[in-house]
This record gives sequence, C-alpha cells and structure tokens, in this order.
Amino acid sequence: MESYTPTPRTKVVRHADRGVYNRKRIEAILDEGFVCHVGFAVDGQPYVIPMAYGRAGDLLYLHGSAGNRMLRVLAEGAEVCVTVTLVDGIVMGRSAFRQSINYRCVIILGKARLLTEPPEKMAGLRCLTNHVSPGRWEEVRKPNAKELASTNVVEIALNEVGAKVRAGPPLDPPEDFLWPVWAGVLPLHTRAGEPLPAAEMPPDVPPINASLVARFGTRS
Amino acid sequence: MESYTPTPRTKVVRHADRGVYNRKRIEAILDEGFVCHVGFAVDGQPYVIPMAYGRAGDLLYLHGSAGNRMLRVLAEGAEVCVTVTLVDGIVMGRSAFRQSINYRCVIILGKARLLTEPPEKMAGLRCLTNHVSPGRWEEVRKPNAKELASTNVVEIALNEVGAKVRAGPPLDPPEDFLWPVWAGVLPLHTRAGEPLPAAEMPPDVPPINASLVARFGTRS
Repeated sequence: MESYTPTPRTKVVRHADRGVYNRKRIEAILDEGFVCHVGFAVDGQPYVIPMAYGRAGDLLYLHGSAGNRMLRVLAEGAEVCVTVTLVDGIVMGRSAFRQSINYRCVIILGKARLLTEPPEKMAGLRCLTNHVSPGRWEEVRKPNAKELASTNVVEIALNEVGAKVRAGPPLDPPEDFLWPVWAGVLPLHTRAGEPLPAAEMPPDVPPINASLVARFGTRS
Repeated sequence: MESYTPTPRTKVVRHADRGVYNRKRIEAILDEGFVCHVGFAVDGQPYVIPMAYGRAGDLLYLHGSAGNRMLRVLAEGAEVCVTVTLVDGIVMGRSAFRQSINYRCVIILGKARLLTEPPEKMAGLRCLTNHVSPGRWEEVRKPNAKELASTNVVEIALNEVGAKVRAGPPLDPPEDFLWPVWAGVLPLHTRAGEPLPAAEMPPDVPPINASLVARFGTRS
C-alpha cells in the first residue's frame, strides 16, 4: 500500500493539513529516529517509557531484559501506543500565541507479539542494533544462548499508523508583522560529538566505524 | 524536600542504581528539556503525544488549543504520565548485548488541573514560553482575550516523580575486552543551526536574542 488508512484513532483533527499517512514519509521518520516513547496502561494508570527501536518492513522491534515489566505487559496483549518524535526547530512568532515547534511525529497503535524462537529473536535484535548503529551487528560479538534467553524481543505491526508534521515559518497574522521583534525559526539538529573510547581497548583496534558517526551527523 | 519519595510506581527496579529521586537533579533534567511525551488512556487505549512544557517550582505546565482532546481528557481528571527524555549518547560495547544508550529520563505521574482564571492562565503561558525560549515572553505580543479563551492550560503537580539515568562507558565483561572492534560512547548533542528569519520582518528589527540561541547551543 502507498498510504496508511487513517482511523478515528490516528486521523489528525486539528491542523488536518499536518496529517501524514504516506508510507514512505512515515518510514523516513521512523528510520531517522531511534528512540520511541512506549505508552501502556496498568490498572488504568498510563506509563510512558523511552525505548530504542528498530524497523524492518512493516514491523517495529522493541527489546529489553526478560524482567522488564513493560515488555511483559505488552507480551500479555495490552494495547500499546508507540510514538516517535523528531524535533526540527523552535518557531518564534511575534506573539506568545504563535510560538511553536517544528516537529515530525509518528504514532503507532496496536498490540505487540513476543518473539519466542531464537532465530526470530536474533533477527529482531539484528534489526534493532543496526537501526541505531548501522553495521554494528556485523562487527560485534553476537548474543550467546544465555544472553538471548535473558532478552525479550517484541514486534509491533505497522498497521494503524499516522503522523503529524509541522514545518515552516511562524503563522503570524499580517497585523503582527510590524511588532518589533525577531521572528522566524531556530533549526535544531542532533549532532555527534567526539567519540569517547572505552578504557580497555587493545591498541591495534581500528577507529569507530565512520558510518556510525555519519548516521548522527557531525559538528563540523 | 530534598528528594522525591519513590513509590511502587516510580521506584526503579532494574538497574536500581540508575534511579534518581534527588529534586535538584530532576529539576535540572526538566529544565534542560522542553518536549515531553504525555501518556493518557481513552477507553483502555493508551496514547502518547509530544508536547512542549514549562516548569516553575513544583508545577509543570502544558497548553494547547481549547479543542485539544488530550487536554480535555486531562481536565476531566484522567491519570496522566509525563515523560521527559534527554538522549546523551550511543553506548557501543563489544557485544550486541552491550549496545545501549546514555540518557536521562524523568517520569511524572498524577492528574492535571485545568487553569480557569485568566491571570493563572497567563502565568502558565509565560512559564511555558520562557521555558522553551528564555526571555521570549517579554519581547512578544501577549495573548489577547480571544487568544487566551481559545487556549487551554493545565498544571501537573510534581509529587510522584522519579528519574532513571544511564551514563558512562559500555559494561563489557573482561572476557570481551579483546574483541577487535571499537568500543566506547558516541556523545550526542542538540545544536541550533543558522536562524531562519521570517519573510515579513521590518528591516530595522534587532537580530534574534542571543540567549535563545545559547539555550540550545551552537554548532561551533
């Protein structure tokens, strides 16, 4: 399919023009981000927990310790909301009313499935590792049986999905144009700083994979 | 009080040493961030929505359109979870198992109160505006009666609050030290890019307030 079908739960109502359902645009947001906020409820109390994630095709993967409560709740079939937000800039209009934020936000609703077979767990972990740090899976030691057993991995199908995107300048009405203050957008970027090597590396180890630094951008 | 009292809902269980309840440390995280993820449930379905926020003393402020469903649900007394996450770096161990993320995350549980009196709404909006962009409230046009009426502002008391912080290098076991791959931390920073002025500014307007750019850092 080319676009997700908006549902009453994912359709953007306010600023409907900011609603995005196009699959390629949504996948681009999911692939740029690597931290999501996972919402679930226990006894009516909502919780929101930040988690790393990976995407492959129409599946999103989350992982954590086998003791992780959130993953246990999800594995039991709880409704989940996964939100990925990229903050692009501060929007500064001439009035307090027209301060805003440029952002791209994807919301995924559904249920998770606990992966139980070692090969599918390994595939999920490979996706997660390489989503955050491209190529990292191929260069590190793979999980051993004990590590794999102590890790829970869940997948969430990308079915009920929508996004909301704000971009561009402040929306000041013309009667505010002469207000004597700077107006516009202050763009924000995530940048990688200088890599901090671990203390115990052998002296002949090659430097950090350049594609990892490039994935997050550099400060120059 | 110097620290928040951990409750069964905010006490960090896994990696208990990463739990932070100290008030000053938590306030520092809340003051560095400006986007939170708000969790609430409607008919058992959790939703997680990104929102700008402001903090003043023991109160967190959220705002939005009077038509905003989330704020209406919160105003009706729904349980809420507000999560603020700062991502500090990518942790790269020698094994897939030891990939991680350095972060600081505050979780606030409670209920919101809808502000109804114009003066308290104005105070909440001032806090929000200046939390994101220090000093901005003083230089922009203040909300008029119509704008104020079309804006909902809620406050959430900082009572049941906890944080979890991961910092430092990967936790590789010594038997992995000789694995021939770079290991360490790739620090991540949010940086401000070049300000993009709005098209309609009068020619004699002063440049963007330097303290706004400094709040987000610069690329140099």
